[in-house]
Amino acid sequence: SAINVALEMKEKGKITKAQKLFQHAMALCPRHPDILINYGEFFETSRQDYLMADQLYQQALTFSPGNTKALTNRKRTSPVVEELDERRLERIDEKRDILIQMPESSAALKRVKKEAYFQQLYHTAGIEGNTMTLSETRFILETRLAVGGKSIMEHNEILGLDAAMKFINSSLVNRIGKITVDDILNIHKHLMGFVDPADAGRFRQTQVYVGGHTPPPPKIIPESIQQLIQWLNSEEALQLHPIHYAAIAHYKLVYIHPFTDGNGRTSRLLMNWVLMQAGYPPVIIRKQDRQLYYSHLDTANKGDIRPFIRFIADCTEKTVDVYLWAT
Amino acid sequence: SAINVALEMKEKGKITKAQKLFQHAMALCPRHPDILINYGEFFETSRQDYLMADQLYQQALTFSPGNTKALTNRKRTSPVVEELDERRLERIDEKRDILIQMPESSAALKRVKKEAYFQQLYHTAGIEGNTMTLSETRFILETRLAVGGKSIMEHNEILGLDAAMKFINSSLVNRIGKITVDDILNIHKHLMGFVDPADAGRFRQTQVYVGGHTPPPPKIIPESIQQLIQWLNSEEALQLHPIHYAAIAHYKLVYIHPFTDGNGRTSRLLMNWVLMQAGYPPVIIRKQDRQLYYSHLDTANKGDIRPFIRFIADCTEKTVDVYLWAT
Ligand SMILES: Nc1ncnc2c1ncn2[C@@H]1O[C@H](COP(=O)(O)OP(=O)(O)OP(=O)(O)O)[C@@H](O)[C@H]1O
Ligand SMILES: Nc1ncnc2c1ncn2[C@@H]1O[C@H](COP(=O)(O)OP(=O)(O)OP(=O)(O)O)[C@@H](O)[C@H]1O
Ligand SMILES: [Mg+2]
Ligand SMILES: [Mg+2]
Repeated sequence: SAINVALEMKEKGKITKAQKLFQHAMALCPRHPDILINYGEFFETSRQDYLMADQLYQQALTFSPGNTKALTNRKRTSPVVEELDERRLERIDEKRDILIQMPESSAALKRVKKEAYFQQLYHTAGIEGNTMTLSETRFILETRLAVGGKSIMEHNEILGLDAAMKFINSSLVNRIGKITVDDILNIHKHLMGFVDPADAGRFRQTQVYVGGHTPPPPKIIPESIQQLIQWLNSEEALQLHPIHYAAIAHYKLVYIHPFTDGNGRTSRLLMNWVLMQAGYPPVIIRKQDRQLYYSHLDTANKGDIRPFIRFIADCTEKTVDVYLWAT
Repeated sequence: SAINVALEMKEKGKITKAQKLFQHAMALCPRHPDILINYGEFFETSRQDYLMADQLYQQALTFSPGNTKALTNRKRTSPVVEELDERRLERIDEKRDILIQMPESSAALKRVKKEAYFQQLYHTAGIEGNTMTLSETRFILETRLAVGGKSIMEHNEILGLDAAMKFINSSLVNRIGKITVDDILNIHKHLMGFVDPADAGRFRQTQVYVGGHTPPPPKIIPESIQQLIQWLNSEEALQLHPIHYAAIAHYKLVYIHPFTDGNGRTSRLLMNWVLMQAGYPPVIIRKQDRQLYYSHLDTANKGDIRPFIRFIADCTEKTVDVYLWAT
């Protein structure tokens, strides 16, 4: 079978060939513990990629809980990965501190802030399917004029994102005190006001489905959101690293999926609100990373939220790098 | 003075010259009772225009209540004008009855209904300053796509008018029962939802001014609207001719001016709702008649609502004529 040939190739040092065969085997049986474990070991020994290895062992454990081989292997990779994660966060924080010390009056900082603002709106709209280009997004926000041939609602989505960001910047970021249900409803109201005035700022009344995920039924949404709010304001949550805290906040909100539409955007706005409070710039999740982003949410639904947090940390670092590079 | 020369010209039968001199005198002293009365007599005798004459005598009475000459003259013109108004309403009702008897399935009727719908939205948006052409209005509603170079909000104004009309047609026209405050708030909510999500469906909290008119202060709006609602549902009001009823409803709402913006449009929608309930098509007030329309509202504020009612009857007749002409 493919997996035996793959192991053979690996032995012979034919790394590229081996990887292709592993990928083939994975495509056929994406949940087979032996394949996941073997592929993980391939990453560990032939690629020194402990992160991928650790994730594959973790996947094997999801489908075959208590798998001895997977558990043994993870004992090896886990500490390495944790160490890598730690170091990444330290690195990001160092960069953030450089940013924070920059004078507000710096012309370069102002320029990159403005540019990043348009990019953020462009990407968060684009992930959702909006077809405006970056320069069209900029044109719309600077002139409030329409772009011929694009749908009116795509314009309104951009205006809504702008209104929501302005609301967060003016009313939430510098506010002291707990996060409330109304804060989340108000973000959604600004976001969706121009697109769907009737449903903006209101919880959904129907069941929805997101890919393979079935969010809680409408009846229990107020209760689920209440639990999220309690978590957001809890000692335990506030002791987390801000990037962990922000990523988990995003995940928990999009898991509940409390609105008919705009859940992804509202969750990304919530995430950016709490990141900004901790001194980070609003993070850009690029539209070209859409599939990766969705797959990490899917992995979180299956029990492992760490790849999603790592992904958000990656996005944060990339965003911070752009700021540093431009200033 | 101009007025003496005007009277001289009138004696000599130099009608055009006389009228020019009267207009000049009016421009200088628009509230002088003698000029108003003389100009009225000119219309009565030289032009056989009893309507204009009556309106001028009425104006003289507004500025000089109890003026004997004006009162005597009005005794003459009043019955003639009332007779004219009566006959006009009968004529409009005859035309409406022809329309009502037309089969719903008539292709020509469907076509004119659709065309008139676009025209109505185009004109009611245009009065307010919206620069979309009739064909752009049509394009927007048929495709939901944007017109390059026009402001996004102008698009949203068209979408709002469409949403409000659809709401009226689906939820209000065929409903039995009294008109409520919520009906008016809901019309405004649909109308302004895309343009100003925060204020749509809400009474204003500040003082506003409309031309020379100072609407009631925000504090008493709920009470004023309550009185309007009581009037709308009163025996007295419901016994009026539907065109009188609709025109007064429009006037009373725009007088209170309960919203920050969209009062004119909401009032025209209210007027059209009650007209449709009485079997008339929604009436078009053409954007080119804007100044005339405003001046009749101004005359109503000064105490004489009849020119405004007459104007609405004119608009109704013109709209009905278009339907009949096309079917
Ligand atoms: N498997 C999943 N489990 C939980 N959430 C998911 C999953 N896949 C996608 N999502 C989230 O659902 C969002 C889409 O939901 P919705 O359409 O309500 O949000 P949106 O803001 O309109 O769209 P988008 O988030 O794509 O911009 C995605 O952006 C993502 O954040
Ligand atoms: N002198 C007046 N007295 C009372 N109402 C007036 C007067 N002049 C104008 N109006 C009304 O006020 C409206 C304008 O108010 P507002 O801007 O709130 O309404 P709109 O719907 O945004 O604009 P528009 O009615 O022009 O479309 C006019 O359309 C008209 O109906
Ligand atoms: Mg969506
Ligand atoms: Mg206005």
